[in-house]
Formats: sequence, structure tokens, C-alpha cells
Amino acid sequence: MSMETEGERLAELAKRRGYFFGASGAYGGAAGFYTFGPQGASLKSNVEDAWRDRFTVQEGNFEIEAPTIMPEPVFEASGHLDGFDDMLVECPECGESHRADHLIEDATAIEEAETLPIPEVEALIADHELQCPTCGAHLAGESVDDFNLMFETNIGPGSSTPGYLRPETAQGIFVEFPRIKEYARNSLPFGATQIGRAYRNEISPRKSIVRTREFTQAELEQFVDPERDEPALESVADVAVTLYPAAEQEADDGDYVETTVGAAVEEGIIGDAWIGYFLGIAQEWYERIGVDMDRFRFRQHLAGERAHYAADCWDAESEVDGDWIEIAGFAYRGDYDLSKHSEYSDDEFTIFRQFDEPKTVETAVVEPDMSVLGPEFGGAAGDVKSALEALAERDPDAFEGKTVTVEVDGETHEVDVDVANFRVETQTVSGEHITPHVIEPSFGVDRTVYTLLAHAYEEDDVGDETRTYLSLSPDVAPTDVGVFPLVSNVERLVERAEGLVDDLRESGFSVVYDDSGSIGRRYRRQDEVGTPFCVTVDRDGLEGDGPDTVTIRERDTARQVRVPVDDLVAELRAVERGGQPFDDLVDRYDLVESGTDA
Amino acid sequence: MSMETEGERLAELAKRRGYFFGASGAYGGAAGFYTFGPQGASLKSNVEDAWRDRFTVQEGNFEIEAPTIMPEPVFEASGHLDGFDDMLVECPECGESHRADHLIEDATAIEEAETLPIPEVEALIADHELQCPTCGAHLAGESVDDFNLMFETNIGPGSSTPGYLRPETAQGIFVEFPRIKEYARNSLPFGATQIGRAYRNEISPRKSIVRTREFTQAELEQFVDPERDEPALESVADVAVTLYPAAEQEADDGDYVETTVGAAVEEGIIGDAWIGYFLGIAQEWYERIGVDMDRFRFRQHLAGERAHYAADCWDAESEVDGDWIEIAGFAYRGDYDLSKHSEYSDDEFTIFRQFDEPKTVETAVVEPDMSVLGPEFGGAAGDVKSALEALAERDPDAFEGKTVTVEVDGETHEVDVDVANFRVETQTVSGEHITPHVIEPSFGVDRTVYTLLAHAYEEDDVGDETRTYLSLSPDVAPTDVGVFPLVSNVERLVERAEGLVDDLRESGFSVVYDDSGSIGRRYRRQDEVGTPFCVTVDRDGLEGDGPDTVTIRERDTARQVRVPVDDLVAELRAVERGGQPFDDLVDRYDLVESGTDA
Repeated sequence: MSMETEGERLAELAKRRGYFFGASGAYGGAAGFYTFGPQGASLKSNVEDAWRDRFTVQEGNFEIEAPTIMPEPVFEASGHLDGFDDMLVECPECGESHRADHLIEDATAIEEAETLPIPEVEALIADHELQCPTCGAHLAGESVDDFNLMFETNIGPGSSTPGYLRPETAQGIFVEFPRIKEYARNSLPFGATQIGRAYRNEISPRKSIVRTREFTQAELEQFVDPERDEPALESVADVAVTLYPAAEQEADDGDYVETTVGAAVEEGIIGDAWIGYFLGIAQEWYERIGVDMDRFRFRQHLAGERAHYAADCWDAESEVDGDWIEIAGFAYRGDYDLSKHSEYSDDEFTIFRQFDEPKTVETAVVEPDMSVLGPEFGGAAGDVKSALEALAERDPDAFEGKTVTVEVDGETHEVDVDVANFRVETQTVSGEHITPHVIEPSFGVDRTVYTLLAHAYEEDDVGDETRTYLSLSPDVAPTDVGVFPLVSNVERLVERAEGLVDDLRESGFSVVYDDSGSIGRRYRRQDEVGTPFCVTVDRDGLEGDGPDTVTIRERDTARQVRVPVDDLVAELRAVERGGQPFDDLVDRYDLVESGTDA
Repeated sequence: MSMETEGERLAELAKRRGYFFGASGAYGGAAGFYTFGPQGASLKSNVEDAWRDRFTVQEGNFEIEAPTIMPEPVFEASGHLDGFDDMLVECPECGESHRADHLIEDATAIEEAETLPIPEVEALIADHELQCPTCGAHLAGESVDDFNLMFETNIGPGSSTPGYLRPETAQGIFVEFPRIKEYARNSLPFGATQIGRAYRNEISPRKSIVRTREFTQAELEQFVDPERDEPALESVADVAVTLYPAAEQEADDGDYVETTVGAAVEEGIIGDAWIGYFLGIAQEWYERIGVDMDRFRFRQHLAGERAHYAADCWDAESEVDGDWIEIAGFAYRGDYDLSKHSEYSDDEFTIFRQFDEPKTVETAVVEPDMSVLGPEFGGAAGDVKSALEALAERDPDAFEGKTVTVEVDGETHEVDVDVANFRVETQTVSGEHITPHVIEPSFGVDRTVYTLLAHAYEEDDVGDETRTYLSLSPDVAPTDVGVFPLVSNVERLVERAEGLVDDLRESGFSVVYDDSGSIGRRYRRQDEVGTPFCVTVDRDGLEGDGPDTVTIRERDTARQVRVPVDDLVAELRAVERGGQPFDDLVDRYDLVESGTDA
């Protein structure tokens, strides 16, 4: 094994084979921005499609596509304008900006330093004599400032209409709740999803595509009636999960809890059934797309990490290079988001909840006789009327005597109850307006892609050669099938191979044709980009008496079988999509000697 | 017919049924930003997939995903920082900003006013006594300014690193050419594509989702060797197109030219074979996804519209509300883009072109004897050496005599040819570095979606009711199939319908289940969102001796046939994807009387 880290090996392969690389390299690059090459764009798009299938289509949710630029009032309401900050310290010598909390975490045993107040952070920098990681200058005495992570711009000419690049796709859903609920026919529960770019102006982006300034999120906002709606927990009750609850993280001998979703909810380890439901389907989804479940866990947020309005919050975390990376978050957000937008905007962020049976409600009303109040109170008559109405609503008992007393601008006025025209009306009410609660599963697509590549990276020996391959799941691999003529100078082989490319594409496979270089090199090339199967057209297959045949080679074992051309599409469909093991092909067809793999 | 315009009717349906609506409506909206609702997001995503299939997969091109924020040097090179402006005039009374060229075009017969110089535009505003469209104030005498259309922001803390939201996806491809060419194994021709957001800070956005500030582009950059590479023109030579060449636009009695791609290229109406090739495949693609080809044309740019570096440029235009909308552009951009980035960056934007046979090249070189030049020319010796080298390259004949004369800083120096050490060397060169030319088909996805909806909007009478339906192509319709139990209170029907939903989803169909309201209302709902087929489970189909049956209803004709449940998936696949007409089903199965449609 080489001395490179997993991350370094991956970065090298990713750039060489077109998965991802630092953007705008021709101009020295732009920190925190990455470009996905052809393989990476395809893998990412397959991950997005797999997410859409599970979290939108199968759940019957509503997917929307909102703009990435949103006007300032949205972020006043959401709290991002005031509170979405990181702690910035600037080096007095070289001018480089650093995250103060990260410097402290790197130099001390303190974790989650971002939860500390700024004066304490400044004191820690001085106490530990922290230095600028770039030039080594001492940072003691430098001020630590809140730095808002939103990218700001101006909408239209001038600076009168500030706009911000959304820091999460979620706000695009919350803001449009009044319209989305109509598409859901005003009935809870329903979920709305969005897959798209989000932006955070990180002070110091790091770790490849794990902490970037522009990234892709896949978010689901599940809107529920907290008193009535229950998830289909039974469908995931038996799913096994590795949990790392807050209590275990805080205990001296804390450990993972290996349990099932059903048991964890029942025992209160997971505080909410909806959270449990989404952890269950996420666990199955991650497994299906190829995350190594031995390097995966759900970690509960500690009390200090959690937003004040979040009742319970868990992260899905994957391990790469010994570090745990947050790849998704699952938060019970209560009515925080919709209430805020209700408060700040002119729209309704509620749902009408029908009572089981209509209720009879008694409402106290007054209808003051203005022909009496007018002459009596003059200009104050209107205010007296309002005061009577408010009193009736607040304290109907006050109207039980012959007169009633109200205060207007500090003066006390007495009014006959008859003149106030007090009465109690009986109304039938069929329901009430409630603010739905929100459960938010929020997935980082780039980090998922990073995890899949890291967990798929394998090296082994085939023949007398060491090879690198990506054991990507057929569900997400950029290419389904590689098709090769064994040699490129025999027209018959080339034509047949090209014909197969057309057939396979028509059947919905993503296919690469390659006729350049030795067959062994072509297999390696596909191994390195994670293509699960390769089909080779050779002379042996087209000669002889029987039906024409081609070979199918499995990536991970490099085994090859010889299959009739007429059965190729069906057999590939079975192993690619049907989950049929390659062993079945090995049982039914002739295994080809490994000679052609060299 | 109502008095609404096509656009107004469409906007109303789009909002009500979840296609698109103005974003952030709860906060009064943000001009030029739209949110796609569930139907619209799905339609848009289907259009993107159809584009990817045709222009990336079938062409064997490389798709990438680059960031939307790019650093300033990129746009210095591309010319956007200096030249990507619109003409802004601000109202002195109400402060509203307007596009000066649009005001002139609206009030005069002048077209393409953006090509006029600013002083002329100011003069026209005064001459025509133009008024502010918002408040009516006179604009004469107000200054007209260039306004850069890029959204600007800052990358990282402070303002030292300006970044811009890309005004087109193309720059993400051009900038990464040095890496993409490696994935193409350094061999021309190849194409690179990108689908993603682009941003233009329009002064006055208008026309719904036609001119917005944030939009989605699908762009293809075809890199070619201009001297060697030819497109597969024969594959589209017979495609019929409606062309509106520049000469016809300028002629008094100019008219469309109805021809074929092959003939148009041969006759020089289309100036370049690559442009012809892309017009051909675009024509077929638009037809397939459902653009009304009677409301579609290719219009050539007039000389004044074209960028100076573009040899030929055509727009695909669709007609909505009597206006022609540019929905794609096809430009021959020469080596402009790659040359610019080569000039401004440190990277290589060339491809090594192998000669057919290695060439023997004679190169004149000098190797001056500095032990002679040094004493003779002192401090000028180095300059004399350089001058001799330059002269040898420029004019080897100058070295034919005994001495040679060079000029340095205006002084003439004479040097012995022996001292200059002149000789001619013979080298074998296998190829040369060339800058590829670019042909750019650039598609507006939002405008395509708008066109599809406008062209699909239909009203007719079914029974004694007027209905609205969207005759969207099955290739792009948001939902493939609606599945209904005839009534929702018979468990047997509901269960069977839910089972069919699962079956159809497993077969890859996008399905909506609906059991609320009368069957007629459910059909209308699917008609209005353009669902091509609806399947209804009724008692008749589950009773009796024969196999169980359901009805399939075709959207456009409201005809229904009764089909055995076991054949449902296969029959739907044939009419949905196989292009089999519904008439075939009508021939083979019993037509159901229209009663159930009510």
C-alpha cells in the first residue's frame, strides 16, 4: 500500500478519470469550487435520480424547482441574515482569513468551538498562542468577528434590492408553502422536495468536495399535523441501524447502539417516529447506492449543536480517512419555519384542520348603539366602541350587570349594557387553522458522491498486475456497460460491436464503446471508472456452428462468461438492474479463461 | 374564445396547476424569478433528459457540471466584464429603471436598437419625446448608461476576490477545456455539454419565464479541427426545415425558405456544414418533444446582430401570442473562445494535430560566439544576439554574405556570419498545436418549456362541457399515467387500482393515483396537466367470466378502450414510448361508451 491517504488517492483518480477537480484551474483555481467531469457529473446525476425515486416518487411527494437567488426579506424571516455566521479571524501579517473555531479545535481538545461566545474564543487564541496556519504570525489580540456566510448580490440596477444566494434549498420550499399546499389539496401530511445548488461563503473551504462554497442539496420538507399524522413506521421497523445517541457520546465509556428503527423509537432513543421513519428509509437507500455500512452511522446532535427550535436531530455520517463526515441531517423543526414566514410575510402558512365533528362555539359580541354613544362621548365614541368589542371578547362576564366600564386613553367611561347591545351568539365551527410541523431530511449530494467513491475504491492483483477499480453499485455507476471489439482492425468485429452499442442504448443502458489500445488496457480503464460490466466481441464468438456469442466480464472479480448475442440484453438487464448475481451467469454459461484480460 | 391572450391563459393555468409561478410571492415577489411547481419541475426535468439523450448520449459527448460562481479573470477573458451590457435609462421622477433600446423599439419602427451607439439612443429618446412607462415622466435629457448584466458577489471575506454568477454555462466548458480534452484523449472532434443555471441581471425582466434573471441553459460546445473534421451531414440531409435567412429578412418581399438541411448547406443558405448538422438534429428533437412545427422557424442573424467573431449564426424561434421567441442559438464561434482563454490564462487551449506524414522542416538557427560579441558590443551584446536570432528566423537569406547587419535601439551593427554561427538544421516534426474551432448550439430550457405549454394548450367540447387540456408529448409529460378506482368507497376497486400503481411504477412509468371527486373531474384534472393516458378500475372489469379488465382513456380524444389487466403494462408501453397510435388499441379492443367521462 502506498503512503497516500485515502483522500489523496481519490483526488488523483478523480482528476485523472474525470470525476471532479478544482474549478477554473487555468486561472489558478477558486478555493471551494469544484467541477464535475464527465464521470462525476454522471455519477452525481445518478445519485440525484436515485434520491428522487426514493424520497419524491415512492413517497408521493411534490418536487419543485425554485430560484437560487432570493430577496432579502426571506432571510430576515428565516434568521439567516442575522444568525448564519462563522467566526472570522484575519492574520495581521499575511491577511489570510481563518475560522477561529477551527484553529481552536485543531490546537486543543475542545470540540464544537463554534458554540462558544466570541470573547472566549479570543481569549483561547491568546492563551494557546495560536499562529496563522499560512505564515506563522501570532494571532493573539486579533479581533474575532461574525462573518455572514451568504453570498450577497444586487437584484436589478443599483443596490436598493439586495439578494442572496440561498444557503439551503429548504427556504425555496418554505416560502412557497402557500402555493404547494394547494397542489396537495390543502391536506396534511404531504412532503415537498427540491434538488439543487446551495451556497455558503466558507471562510476557509477544505477537504476536497466535502466543504465547498457551492454544492448540491437534496432536501425533503415533510409537513405534518403533529397531533394527528403518523408515519408508516411499520414499513421500516425491522431495519437495523447503528446509532450514536447524545448520551453515549457524552458518557466516558459510550458506545454505538446496534438496534432496529422500531426498537429505537419504542425505547425513546430516537425521540420522534417521523425521524425514525426517515432514518429507516435513508439506511436502506444508502445501502442500495453503495455506501459501506461498516463505515456508516447515525449520530444524534448534542444539545449544544441543535438549533433551539429543533426537538431532535440526527446526522447520517460516513467515515473517510478516519474522519466522520456529515452526509445528511434529519431534524424535527416544529412549526419554526412556517411560523416565521407567517410572521414576516403577508401570506398564510397554515392548513385548515377539520374537526372530527363540527363544534358549537359561543361567541360574545356587542353591537353598540352609536346614536347613543355618539352624543355621549363625541370624538371618543369610536374608541369606546372598540374598547367594548375587545372587552366582550376578553371577559364576557363584565357585561352581567346593568352597566359596564371601559377605559379609553386613561379615562374611564361607563356604558349601559343595553346600549352596548351585548349578546352571546352560538356558531358551528367545522375546523381550525393550524401551522404544520416540519420534519426535514436534508442530504448533501456532493458528500454522498465523495463517500461512494471513497468506499468503492479498491486495489487488487489480476494476473500479475495490480489494478485499481471502483466497485460502484450498478444503480449509480456512470456507465452501465463497456463494449469492445477485441481488435479494432477487423471490420466484422467493429461492426458487430457498434451494433450492440445501438441495441443496448435502445434498451436504456448507458454504454461506452472503446476500440483503442489493448483489450487489457480497455478493461482497466473501465475498472477505474467503475463500469460494472464489459462486453467483448471476438472472433471465437462469431465463428463456428452455434449461435454467435460475446463475452461479459464482471468488474469486481474480472471473471468472464460467454453468452449468446441474442440473450445479451436480457442477461445484462438481470445482473445490472434485477440484482441477479453474476454467479448465476457463471453457473449457466462457459467461463472464459482469463487470457483476454491481459 | 375568451379575450385573454395565449400568455395570460397559460400563466393562469401554470399557477393553478403547479407548472410555474412568480417566486417569493409571500414577500411581494422578485421580478424575473420564477419557481417551477411539481408539474413544471417534472416537465422541465423531462425536457432536460430528452436533451441529454439527444445531444450528449447519442452524440457521444462529454457532460460536465461546473460551478455557477466563477472568478473575475474568467470574464475578463471572455469579454463579459467589459461588453456584456444593456442600455439603462432611469426615470428622474419615479426612479424606475428601463432598457433604453426597448423603449425605442416600442415607440418607433426601429429594430435591434441595442446595436445603436449611446449618443444616438439619447437623441432618439429626446426626438420621440419618450416617457417613463411607469409614471409617464419625460425621459429626454436623461443619460443612457451601459449596465453590466452579470450578478456580482464576493468570494470569501472582504471584497478582494470578486466573483460573478455565470451569464452562460458555456464558460464552464471553455475554461476546463485543458482537462476535458484529456478525457477525449486529445483527439478532435469532440463535444462537451452542460445543463445548468445561468444568470442575467436584466434591467426589466418581462414575458413570464421567457426573459428572467435566473434560467436554465443546455449548451453544447462542439470542438473541431476546421480543416479536417466534417459532421455526419448525410444523417440529417433530408430533414425539412423552415429557414428565414438574413437576405430574406432584409428584402422587401422576403419570405421563408422551405428546404432541406442538405440542400440549404449545398446552396450556401446555411454557411457551415456543422451548423446545418445541428439545425437538422434540433429540428427533429423539437418535433419529437412536441413543438408545433407550424409555429417554428430557424432565423439567421443579421450582420449587425452577430458577434464579430461569429461566422454564421441562426436562432431557433417559436411563435407564442404572435411574437417570435428565441429558444436556441446556433453559432459558429471560430477559435475566439479558446484563443481568449489561452491569451489570458496560464493553460494550453490547443490540441496536437498529427500531420498525415511526419514533415521535414528546415530551421535556420544562429549560435553567436559571445566571446567575440561581448568585447565588441559590451552591454548591447545580448540584444545583438537576440536580434541575430530573430533575423535568422525571419530572413535566413540575410546570412548568405560574409557579414550581416542588425539594428538594436536604432543603431546598426555589423557582425561576421562566422561569428553569428549561422546554419540550417533539418528536423522531423510529427504535427502541430492548433486551436480548435467551436460550434455552439445553446438551448434555453425555460423558453422551451414555455413553448411546449403554449403549443400544447387546447380547448374543446367533451359531452356538453368545455374542457382545457395540454396535448403534451408522452416524452415530456410530467405524468405518464393516471390510475383511478371508479369509486373510492369500494375496497376491491381501490386495492386493485393501488396494485396497478405499484406495477406501473415498477415498469418505470410515472404514475398519479387519484380517488377524490367524480371520475369526470379526475379526468379533467389529468387533462389540464397533460397526462396522456388514464386507467380506471371499475366493477364491470372485475365481474363476469372473462379475464379482469380496466379502461385506458386517451387524453386528446377522450376515447376509452377496455383492456385485459394482464396486457396493461405492455399496451401502455407501446402507446407511451413505442409511438404506437391509440387507434391500434381501438381496433383491437372494445371502445367504451363515453358515459364514464362525465
